[in-house]
Amino acid sequence: MNANLNPSEQRSLAAIQECSFVVNAGMLWREGTEAKFLDSIQDGSLPKEAFDRWLVQDYLFAKGLTTFQAIAAARAPRSTQKVLIAGLGAMDAELEWFERLASERSLDLDVPHHQTCQRYVDYLIAAAYTQPSEVLVAILFGVEVAYLSGWSALEASGPYAEFVTRWSTEHFLAYVHQLHDACVLHPHQRQQDQFNEVLRHERDFWIMTYEG
Amino acid sequence: MNANLNPSEQRSLAAIQECSFVVNAGMLWREGTEAKFLDSIQDGSLPKEAFDRWLVQDYLFAKGLTTFQAIAAARAPRSTQKVLIAGLGAMDAELEWFERLASERSLDLDVPHHQTCQRYVDYLIAAAYTQPSEVLVAILFGVEVAYLSGWSALEASGPYAEFVTRWSTEHFLAYVHQLHDACVLHPHQRQQDQFNEVLRHERDFWIMTYEG
Amino acid sequence: MNANLNPSEQRSLAAIQECSFVVNAGMLWREGTEAKFLDSIQDGSLPKEAFDRWLVQDYLFAKGLTTFQAIAAARAPRSTQKVLIAGLGAMDAELEWFERLASERSLDLDVPHHQTCQRYVDYLIAAAYTQPSEVLVAILFGVEVAYLSGWSALEASGPYAEFVTRWSTEHFLAYVHQLHDACVLHPHQRQQDQFNEVLRHERDFWIMTYEG
Amino acid sequence: MNANLNPSEQRSLAAIQECSFVVNAGMLWREGTEAKFLDSIQDGSLPKEAFDRWLVQDYLFAKGLTTFQAIAAARAPRSTQKVLIAGLGAMDAELEWFERLASERSLDLDVPHHQTCQRYVDYLIAAAYTQPSEVLVAILFGVEVAYLSGWSALEASGPYAEFVTRWSTEHFLAYVHQLHDACVLHPHQRQQDQFNEVLRHERDFWIMTYEG
Repeated sequence: MNANLNPSEQRSLAAIQECSFVVNAGMLWREGTEAKFLDSIQDGSLPKEAFDRWLVQDYLFAKGLTTFQAIAAARAPRSTQKVLIAGLGAMDAELEWFERLASERSLDLDVPHHQTCQRYVDYLIAAAYTQPSEVLVAILFGVEVAYLSGWSALEASGPYAEFVTRWSTEHFLAYVHQLHDACVLHPHQRQQDQFNEVLRHERDFWIMTYEG
Repeated sequence: MNANLNPSEQRSLAAIQECSFVVNAGMLWREGTEAKFLDSIQDGSLPKEAFDRWLVQDYLFAKGLTTFQAIAAARAPRSTQKVLIAGLGAMDAELEWFERLASERSLDLDVPHHQTCQRYVDYLIAAAYTQPSEVLVAILFGVEVAYLSGWSALEASGPYAEFVTRWSTEHFLAYVHQLHDACVLHPHQRQQDQFNEVLRHERDFWIMTYEG
Repeated sequence: MNANLNPSEQRSLAAIQECSFVVNAGMLWREGTEAKFLDSIQDGSLPKEAFDRWLVQDYLFAKGLTTFQAIAAARAPRSTQKVLIAGLGAMDAELEWFERLASERSLDLDVPHHQTCQRYVDYLIAAAYTQPSEVLVAILFGVEVAYLSGWSALEASGPYAEFVTRWSTEHFLAYVHQLHDACVLHPHQRQQDQFNEVLRHERDFWIMTYEG
Repeated sequence: MNANLNPSEQRSLAAIQECSFVVNAGMLWREGTEAKFLDSIQDGSLPKEAFDRWLVQDYLFAKGLTTFQAIAAARAPRSTQKVLIAGLGAMDAELEWFERLASERSLDLDVPHHQTCQRYVDYLIAAAYTQPSEVLVAILFGVEVAYLSGWSALEASGPYAEFVTRWSTEHFLAYVHQLHDACVLHPHQRQQDQFNEVLRHERDFWIMTYEG
């Protein structure tokens, strides 16, 4: 249980984790949201090398996700644009935060994508241009609900408390709920399929961050 | 002279109106920024019918511009993304403002585009997908600097003061400067040509708002 | 009546000209398929200047249409791809034919689009990226059935016989029928609306070729 | 040595296999063009199951490649369009050939992509919309020169002779040379990098066809 969220928020988190997308994903849900990397963040055993790899590759992923969200915003109906545009603002702030962090740690962000990261980004960009607008929102919901769940399962303490806190806020929780609402408002038969595909990429990404 | 801007801001406005894009546009600059519609806003003689037409068609234009900006943000280098994403947030707020206004006036926003508006939007969408990223920023700069100049030449008084004020703020002025900076940082030989094309569309749009 | 088509082909032409798209277009059908330019081709009175303008601007239009068709082919279901890819092959041959003709007449093809041509191309490119796949086929059908009808109403004689012949062949007729079949196989409520929009652009284009 | 090609064609094949793209790819060239699957085609030991998997997944890949080529044709300069449009015609014929073959063998083509195939297609579609036009031609050249080399190294005999023959023709060889010419005519610093990326995907694809 994450101490950043109050009881009401905890219930809201539990509710989103019981939505039909998550339930229908079956085993993939745990595979995409639990990881040795996260366990090692929690118990403080994470090698510096793994953390640095995560930071750089997650930045490269976040750049790809920003492109995805911009295309999705361009193709969305008016009723879905607000949440997508707000999300773009959040991504821009997140990219800046990564850039500052990398600078403080003297990490070079101008490096090749790990092939696992590249596959995830290729998937997102290809989807952005070719999947129906309703499916794009389900993809983004999958990305964000998995991230929220992965991090908010940790306690915000120890050397990586800042990171746990960042992705277990009530604001992030509210954003994830808004994305879910947008999926429900504009359903599409291919949403679940692509939600699952996101979880496969999340699973592979977490493995890559820990194992290289 | 617009009373919303203090002397320092007036100088900043004058400076942007003397940039090379504006100078090289020649006659098109005045044609795209001065209009009977604006004169009639100022002297209070604008027929309600013209104002309502403007409000509806400018909303439809703004929706198209939002799509343009989202595609431009997707295709921009990291250094240009911040201003484009901030601009998307502003457009979302502007669309909401139009929707509230239309609701108050019982205006239907779900109507066909006037052909002049349609041509402008077609131009923007076609450009968004096919012009180089550097040119897209020049197009957006053209749209915004023309709008800023058109409205901030008016005094914020009379029945339409709210509208004059809206597009003569220091924030809008700062945004236009940032767009200009982005053009200068990433130059492209086709920027001027498309800046001029924007002014032609602005000219035609203003004529349409007044004449129908 | 066009002497290039035998009686059976004449009936086939008449049939396509009575399809529901044409009928529902009302007055726009005549406006988009009859033109002073074509009348003057027929009676031999066309000024050389108008012919040259048509040749250059129709080439620039054809380049834009080729881009449109390529995007449409990328976004089409498998069942519609064959006719769209065949059409791309035909467009490539047509562009070459224009290039040869322009070379023979010492016409420069690297000139700006006339604004009427630019509007038509902007419309096509914007549609290619944003309209549903089913609507794109209706747009292409509109372009081609209008061209077929305009030219095949002329007799293939006089100084411009080669041009009349080019767009009144049984192959072109068969292609237009295949496009119509694809529209009927994959209907969409916005098809008629965009079919009509094409006819408006055709009307304006013909006027531009004659009047400049 | 492939008996389908005469001595002059053999020299032409050897020449393209010594181009700088191939040389600079180093080990990746062999990895992307030699495969147990191809060896087993040659010696007749290929399990029916592997052949069927290849046929279905190669069809799904070919559909993705067709989309890639259509976007590339849309974004290409006029001088490169001819070869890209001709290639689209060839792909359409190839898709039909696969469909006939699958029908004869009662294979269902409407199945999910193997994840290795999906990654390759995601890569192609993402590239089609985001890489410079010059790089797209290098990607297509990579796909086709690897396929030509892989198959034309085999003798066209045994149960799979039809397949060996299909991709070792003088026409295919000429097409590959035209693509190479287009790369050389419009160079770009990222061409080699993406040529290499194609070979990695080819390598993984061949492994998947054999191993499942």
